[in-house]
Amino acid sequence: MAKFCIFCSIAAGEAAAQVLGETERTLTILDANPAADGHALVIPKKHCSDLFDCPDDILGELIAEAKKTARLLEEVLGASGVNVLNASGRSAQQSVFHLHFHVVPRYEGDGLDLQLHSLRGTHTPLEEIRKRLVERP
Amino acid sequence: MAKFCIFCSIAAGEAAAQVLGETERTLTILDANPAADGHALVIPKKHCSDLFDCPDDILGELIAEAKKTARLLEEVLGASGVNVLNASGRSAQQSVFHLHFHVVPRYEGDGLDLQLHSLRGTHTPLEEIRKRLVERP
Repeated sequence: MAKFCIFCSIAAGEAAAQVLGETERTLTILDANPAADGHALVIPKKHCSDLFDCPDDILGELIAEAKKTARLLEEVLGASGVNVLNASGRSAQQSVFHLHFHVVPRYEGDGLDLQLHSLRGTHTPLEEIRKRLVERP
Repeated sequence: MAKFCIFCSIAAGEAAAQVLGETERTLTILDANPAADGHALVIPKKHCSDLFDCPDDILGELIAEAKKTARLLEEVLGASGVNVLNASGRSAQQSVFHLHFHVVPRYEGDGLDLQLHSLRGTHTPLEEIRKRLVERP
């Protein structure tokens, strides 16, 4: 990893962060630009750029930590729900290229909108999409 | 499970869906109201209502399947990125109360916006939030 990576730097203890917890391979910190109070990030300590780049066993640890963090946000901050979100790739609006799962606590009437609205316009029929995906040569 | 659950019904083969793949404990289908062509859902076959309700080992399988699906969407449909999203709880905009991870393929200029914009107004300082979360009695 030639380029500076803020999350690698935090994992190495070289950059500051508000740490909520850690395991041998994961670190949970507060997002420095929170979408809600308690907005956390779960990251692997070892550099992976995105979902595609991360071994399944580490992914499993990350999602388990996301669940644990979600429970903490409910219990301590009174969140009544949580969104877990990952962006992988620039077109997916990934901004920091070290894999992270957002854990966003939700509160009634918080004004956030993470609904996946259907795209306007024509869609390819689902059956056709499925065929392309499962019946590829 | 007394109430009718559409995803349980699909997992049991009683309701129709466009199935992309399955493992012993997971099922991957196309979302019937896609936000983009290829928008998929990864669900556990056994009923869990949300993230909080799902054992860690099944969560690990679900996220591994989400990664596999993301790769398929890149390779076959030419997506240049992917968002993985879970909503747990009504305030998090969960609509079907059987755990599901959205896998949303992204394309340059697709018009979707899943950016987590910071909330307007004052935030509680991060240090204070961290203290409440980690130093609870």
